Amino acid sequence: LMAIAPSAQGAEVLASWNEGEAKQSIVRFVESVSKEGSADFVPVPERIAVFDNDGTLWGEQPMYFQLLFALDRVKALAPQHPEWNTQDPFASLLKGDVKAALAGGEHAILEVVMAAHSGMTTDEFEKIVRDWFASAKHPKTGKPYTEMIYQPMLELLDYLRANGFKTFIASGGGIEFVRVFSEQVYGIPPEQVIGSSGKMKFELKGDQMVLNKLPEVDFIDDKAGKPVAIQKHIGRRPIAAFGNSDGDLQMLQWTCSGPGPHFCLYVHHTDGEREWAYDRQSSIGRLDKGLDAAADSGWTVVDMEKDWNRVFAFEK
Amino acid sequence: LMAIAPSAQGAEVLASWNEGEAKQSIVRFVESVSKEGSADFVPVPERIAVFDNDGTLWGEQPMYFQLLFALDRVKALAPQHPEWNTQDPFASLLKGDVKAALAGGEHAILEVVMAAHSGMTTDEFEKIVRDWFASAKHPKTGKPYTEMIYQPMLELLDYLRANGFKTFIASGGGIEFVRVFSEQVYGIPPEQVIGSSGKMKFELKGDQMVLNKLPEVDFIDDKAGKPVAIQKHIGRRPIAAFGNSDGDLQMLQWTCSGPGPHFCLYVHHTDGEREWAYDRQSSIGRLDKGLDAAADSGWTVVDMEKDWNRVFAFEK
Ligand SMILES: [Ca+2]
Ligand SMILES: [Ca+2]
Repeated sequence: LMAIAPSAQGAEVLASWNEGEAKQSIVRFVESVSKEGSADFVPVPERIAVFDNDGTLWGEQPMYFQLLFALDRVKALAPQHPEWNTQDPFASLLKGDVKAALAGGEHAILEVVMAAHSGMTTDEFEKIVRDWFASAKHPKTGKPYTEMIYQPMLELLDYLRANGFKTFIASGGGIEFVRVFSEQVYGIPPEQVIGSSGKMKFELKGDQMVLNKLPEVDFIDDKAGKPVAIQKHIGRRPIAAFGNSDGDLQMLQWTCSGPGPHFCLYVHHTDGEREWAYDRQSSIGRLDKGLDAAADSGWTVVDMEKDWNRVFAFEK
Repeated sequence: LMAIAPSAQGAEVLASWNEGEAKQSIVRFVESVSKEGSADFVPVPERIAVFDNDGTLWGEQPMYFQLLFALDRVKALAPQHPEWNTQDPFASLLKGDVKAALAGGEHAILEVVMAAHSGMTTDEFEKIVRDWFASAKHPKTGKPYTEMIYQPMLELLDYLRANGFKTFIASGGGIEFVRVFSEQVYGIPPEQVIGSSGKMKFELKGDQMVLNKLPEVDFIDDKAGKPVAIQKHIGRRPIAAFGNSDGDLQMLQWTCSGPGPHFCLYVHHTDGEREWAYDRQSSIGRLDKGLDAAADSGWTVVDMEKDWNRVFAFEK
């Protein structure tokens, strides 16, 4: 009877998950590490779980939501930057041609992102992002971005925390951007958010001490950067990791090559009806090497179409 | 009656603190932010307290304990480095002349620290530090370094946590060094430790994925670096900060220029009998500008001799 109780709890909490190997593998793992006396028991302080954000906890199509924020921000700032009217990527962007603006690739994207994410204090940036979330709508669903959250993953976060896990985000996105909504939306406080960052400078502004955001990259939390950033922030190897792309591969490798029990999971975007279907060929959230590694290593791969009976909370 | 109860709790928990303005200012602040309905009430998730480590939570004389670790480590590594016999700072060090070895100043110290803190994986480093703590003894007291902890500060950490605070370390010392003992000694888990760091690289070693520690500084968590590191790790401005030197000044300024209630405290080393007495002229833990700032800003200054009835737990 004792052995059945936690399983039933898992089934109840994970209501948006269909029965199947994906759900079962999660419940099996959580029960084995949290049951006192189990051979795989892990003490609570070591129950560290890390989640990628874009494409793992919320959507990332038709492009990263933070990039959509940056595009909106550039438009809002344009009146103060007359030079942008003749300089790409800004000129194309202001003419409404996003595709041409981003044709410059990573360099163009970085220029847009830097323009949107520096030149203000951390407090000012938080307010700008908060205001954007309050009004911006997703171009396909018309919903606020903070509703473009995968309901099954919210349930998974709750289920892990109910079983003594501390949940962290390790995002390729900007750390200060994600922190604005992570506590309210995911129940993850800012100190448990890891992400890419720009440099900051502590200085006097008027009669106030502020942290100014500089137009300089500090750290890119992607690929081999993820284990490094996880070690810097947490100082302990996670025992569970959740991602959706090749950018998460090293995070999963690091987690699942640990000496004790561990669990790695990829969210595979297979549902072109309710969400988007993409993997090996996609420029956003490419999942190619990761799919092969998951097969080789026996990691769980979630088939969104098959394994989730609901994708977003706003669905019936 | 209700108003007296928490004060009594504070008095009981802070048993090693003598009655006086320092202790009263702590209790006053903690009660005002944690009492529901109080004008200064602060919600639990925002009750962030940051502590410097060297000279604030544990001793730092006759030199930083981490430097003593590095010196021991260099001696242990010497057989593998015959070139050190003729190269300073190593040559002087190996002849037992620490003073001559460190005469080269910051550069010499950095060379010794890098030799001791890189060239191994994070897991290997943790074990090296753990083994050192198990055998090394403080040169004056003969006690293990993990007993060179200020008992009144341990009580203060407990008191804050009992009142909903999340306690962080923000140390100028090495983040991975402090993490080895912070959970056991202070009750502060590794993810709540901020410190100086070296760069790391995620790579394959044999058939294992490891994080290798490189001989390259990543971040110095001192002076204006402290508010930056606090923002990176916590993403929220602390409401209480505790330090002992000019290296903490910017951390205290950042904390105590926040818009809501806040509390800043300096530990002033005034007890040459039970500990050490030093401030404005000291090369270790210099407290000069900080003393002036504390007087100007009305921060609490702890007079160790007067305000603490016990310094170390091993005292009667
Ligand atoms: Ca992703
Ligand atoms: Ca100090």
